[in-house]
Amino acid sequence: MTDLAGWRKRIDEIDQQLVRLLNERSQCAVEIGHMKKVNNLPAWQPDREAEILRNVVKANEGPLDNAAIRRLFERIIDEARSLERHSMEGGSSFRKE
Amino acid sequence: MTDLAGWRKRIDEIDQQLVRLLNERSQCAVEIGHMKKVNNLPAWQPDREAEILRNVVKANEGPLDNAAIRRLFERIIDEARSLERHSMEGGSSFRKE
Repeated sequence: MTDLAGWRKRIDEIDQQLVRLLNERSQCAVEIGHMKKVNNLPAWQPDREAEILRNVVKANEGPLDNAAIRRLFERIIDEARSLERHSMEGGSSFRKE
Repeated sequence: MTDLAGWRKRIDEIDQQLVRLLNERSQCAVEIGHMKKVNNLPAWQPDREAEILRNVVKANEGPLDNAAIRRLFERIIDEARSLERHSMEGGSSFRKE
């Protein structure tokens, strides 16, 4: 693959997978939110978030540096936390818009 | 899968795939940076960024809402742009730290 259009096509394919995985990850967070509610567990568990960041940095082989991976996953965790809180408050329906 | 540990394990598995895909995507950006340099094309191409955001919102089936998907991909694009610029400036080696 040597042309610009080819690399962009590959990025578009990766993005489709990223959207799917980010949503699957978020669905897990929603389920965890329900479970925490039922078991009276706190929504925010900083140890778990630190563990997630350790895991992803450990898995990182570049070219993104560790700081970039950390920034990306801080944002991913942040979005998951919003959904998880929403599901703990009893919400279960999500709109696309 | 009904227990907290099980959902967390699934998140960890997804995160490994996300790290891999985010890095693969970034490698594409590095290649695109090289190609832009060779062909004297501008680093920043806002039309392409708008196209990426349209594509990912179109692919989104939730539970993340479109605003969340847009926020996540703005960050992903931002990290890719940094690497792409770096590769246009002639850098080709990336450190993990």
